[in-house]
Amino acid sequence: MPISLGELATRFGCELVGDPDIEVSGVASMQNANSDSLTFLSNPAFKEQLPSTKAAAVILRPEDAADSPVAALLHADPYACYARMAAVVCPAPTYAPGVHSSAVVDPTATVADSACLAPNVVIGERSVIGKNVYVGPGTVIGPDCTVGDDCRFIANVTLVRATRIGRRGIFHPGAVLGADGFGNAMTPEGWIKVPQVGGVTVGDDVEIGANTTIDCGAIGDTVVEDGVRIDNQCMIAHNVRVGAHSALAAQVGIAGSTTIGKRCMFGGRVGAVGHISICDDVVVWGAGVVSKDITEPGAYSGIFPVEPAKAWAKKVARFRRIDSLIDRVKRLEEK
Amino acid sequence: MPISLGELATRFGCELVGDPDIEVSGVASMQNANSDSLTFLSNPAFKEQLPSTKAAAVILRPEDAADSPVAALLHADPYACYARMAAVVCPAPTYAPGVHSSAVVDPTATVADSACLAPNVVIGERSVIGKNVYVGPGTVIGPDCTVGDDCRFIANVTLVRATRIGRRGIFHPGAVLGADGFGNAMTPEGWIKVPQVGGVTVGDDVEIGANTTIDCGAIGDTVVEDGVRIDNQCMIAHNVRVGAHSALAAQVGIAGSTTIGKRCMFGGRVGAVGHISICDDVVVWGAGVVSKDITEPGAYSGIFPVEPAKAWAKKVARFRRIDSLIDRVKRLEEK
Amino acid sequence: MPISLGELATRFGCELVGDPDIEVSGVASMQNANSDSLTFLSNPAFKEQLPSTKAAAVILRPEDAADSPVAALLHADPYACYARMAAVVCPAPTYAPGVHSSAVVDPTATVADSACLAPNVVIGERSVIGKNVYVGPGTVIGPDCTVGDDCRFIANVTLVRATRIGRRGIFHPGAVLGADGFGNAMTPEGWIKVPQVGGVTVGDDVEIGANTTIDCGAIGDTVVEDGVRIDNQCMIAHNVRVGAHSALAAQVGIAGSTTIGKRCMFGGRVGAVGHISICDDVVVWGAGVVSKDITEPGAYSGIFPVEPAKAWAKKVARFRRIDSLIDRVKRLEEK
Repeated sequence: MPISLGELATRFGCELVGDPDIEVSGVASMQNANSDSLTFLSNPAFKEQLPSTKAAAVILRPEDAADSPVAALLHADPYACYARMAAVVCPAPTYAPGVHSSAVVDPTATVADSACLAPNVVIGERSVIGKNVYVGPGTVIGPDCTVGDDCRFIANVTLVRATRIGRRGIFHPGAVLGADGFGNAMTPEGWIKVPQVGGVTVGDDVEIGANTTIDCGAIGDTVVEDGVRIDNQCMIAHNVRVGAHSALAAQVGIAGSTTIGKRCMFGGRVGAVGHISICDDVVVWGAGVVSKDITEPGAYSGIFPVEPAKAWAKKVARFRRIDSLIDRVKRLEEK
Repeated sequence: MPISLGELATRFGCELVGDPDIEVSGVASMQNANSDSLTFLSNPAFKEQLPSTKAAAVILRPEDAADSPVAALLHADPYACYARMAAVVCPAPTYAPGVHSSAVVDPTATVADSACLAPNVVIGERSVIGKNVYVGPGTVIGPDCTVGDDCRFIANVTLVRATRIGRRGIFHPGAVLGADGFGNAMTPEGWIKVPQVGGVTVGDDVEIGANTTIDCGAIGDTVVEDGVRIDNQCMIAHNVRVGAHSALAAQVGIAGSTTIGKRCMFGGRVGAVGHISICDDVVVWGAGVVSKDITEPGAYSGIFPVEPAKAWAKKVARFRRIDSLIDRVKRLEEK
Repeated sequence: MPISLGELATRFGCELVGDPDIEVSGVASMQNANSDSLTFLSNPAFKEQLPSTKAAAVILRPEDAADSPVAALLHADPYACYARMAAVVCPAPTYAPGVHSSAVVDPTATVADSACLAPNVVIGERSVIGKNVYVGPGTVIGPDCTVGDDCRFIANVTLVRATRIGRRGIFHPGAVLGADGFGNAMTPEGWIKVPQVGGVTVGDDVEIGANTTIDCGAIGDTVVEDGVRIDNQCMIAHNVRVGAHSALAAQVGIAGSTTIGKRCMFGGRVGAVGHISICDDVVVWGAGVVSKDITEPGAYSGIFPVEPAKAWAKKVARFRRIDSLIDRVKRLEEK
């Protein structure tokens, strides 16, 4: 949507260096921008691209303004400012209200008039779909679910049952909420399934990535609090609680009944064992394994990066002989 | 479903301490239980919650009975007893037999009269659906599949082709059985696909988690034996065999042609390389990597938990210099 | 499809030792083959199975021909030769052109007459489906996608939007291409979503596994070049580039903006952090973590396999005390 730099500066509280009547109609990287594009400079590593950009305007920090060859929108946090402006320049798609003829809505369900149900959607018994909700093609919302206003289910999402979602959530394809947790009791005859009778509670402003799974609680709910961001292919087991404004990158796995505090950030493929508690403001670097409570905010890590396979094999062999090394040092000390 | 303590005690062989006419109609944790709830005490870590529970009744070990403030159902294995009773108090949903008008069943397929096919189900050529099977919304069962009696496909499950499933299986959303294995032959012109012509064989009483994938065999079948439990987001590659009553937690990955014995338990995100054999009764702790045969039952592990990022970085640096440490010890020894 | 050994030898450039009129109609392992089966011997580890095979014919290297009890097709690369012949003996299914009555095609989309759209397929605005394409049941192709000739979407695949695919691609169930990347800007009010406006570009002859996710670019496209093979449950983040003819095994995760060269091979569950560059012809062993640029072709590794849990716990404890070991050696050296 074309918009003038003047209007952007006013709406988002930037100082504008340049012609307020210039219009932008798209976003681009500094390198690929053209005269219709809005771009930004946030990470100093890309500063060298600034002098040659052909964008209509660049969002950047005041101290970088002098180096801009084009109009500049000055902001202390160019990345957050870009996020807000890009949502105006490239708005999310809108959907006409209505229920597609191929959608199947249970007679006991309630769907707001302003909601849009795409082809092949299924809505189960007693579920309630709020205002302006978009339920994309192939999405299945099972019984006893509640979906708050302005949520978007992109396509092929499944809410199995008893999943209560706040407002403005975004759910990507293949996400599954409310499937049974992994509850099994061993007996002499083999495993018996432990019925999973809890639900899932999701707060406002949550985004859930493609093919992520959030199981229902065994007893009581699995909870994802307000403002949480979960990337693709994450696994949130039964009765986990993810604190408000935490962000989990792709392939993270959290085992059952573990509690994650507020504003935590987990890198890709972090794992946490079950029944532990991680306090607020914990950062765990990618691929780390959390195996006990964390009670102090801060950054945590624990993983070996790759090196040439032969060198690694040698180190592993030596690591495996660390016992004998300790013995050798002990003998030396005894002399 | 409301049921009296007397009937529960009789059906499941418990001694009852309390009024047999008390009825329970739900299950809850000891903390959240009310006067309609059945609860249980299995893990001693939760024993402190017992005296204050407001449940109708607690399932517990005989030695804990004296501490119960409410009626008690005594059993040597309270968790397994709870699993059985909860299945009666909170029974799985039942489905009226019939084929929804939006389901598409190939004329050469056979569907039992007692089966229920939900909206948007697709059943392929020559497939056979047994008695009382529930095929949830959006599920696709491709050609040449056989589904035993009393199976349940929750929603959006895919059986690609040639998948033979026993009785009483439960398949959660996003599970994919029978997709092609990863078979590629390198040639000077690039990869050539190796046709994957085997199928998948699944025994009785198997449960498969959300977004888990079980590929078809390259030649011959991938096999999941009776009573196996597989959690969400697991990957079972072509020609793997998972032995009876084994349980794999979430995000486990088993590479091609590996055999897992009976009654094995793999923690979350365990990985196993291809073409190896793991004997019966092996436990692998979460995130462990199995890279060669295991021939002795027992517990296996191999992973570093996280610690504060700076301390970890220091240790990794030192580990990487372990060579020089060994050299220094050698020189000391030579003196 | 029955075919004579004579015809196979001629079409694929093999020397035939045996009767050219023998027909094969299926493929099997050497052990399970019968008189209708074509089999092969590639991995020397299986050579002991050759003398007892009951196959109609074996594809093998010339030097193994003398040991074959049955007809032999001689080829320097028996596995690649098997891949080609198996595709003739067990051809991929074919589909009659046409659009199933339950498919929903947007009026602005273009679908080739020779394409087959299965039940419950949805095709979005402005998308173009090429010749002979098979779009399997439940597949959703969103707006602004282009699918080249001869692609196959097995079932329940999702292309979210702006995904451009070359020819002859194969996409397995649950794969999601074009979902939003994980772009979030932290502000005092919590995370703000960074609009993800790029698309996905996929080359010719690409195969994408079940439940794999390939996100759209933040700005500009995520790119998968010609001939790439990606197994199940892989995660390709926004603006990654995967070079031609590379192969990624199951559960691999590649973080945003990382570039992988041509002909790379990543084992199962390899991870790569974001914003790095991996050169051509790099092999990373299973479960390795790539945390910085790789500029030299070769094999890389970095992971600890499991060992008995007690022995491992002891080693970890000692590794954690490596500092004190270094100190002890230092003190010894000072004496």
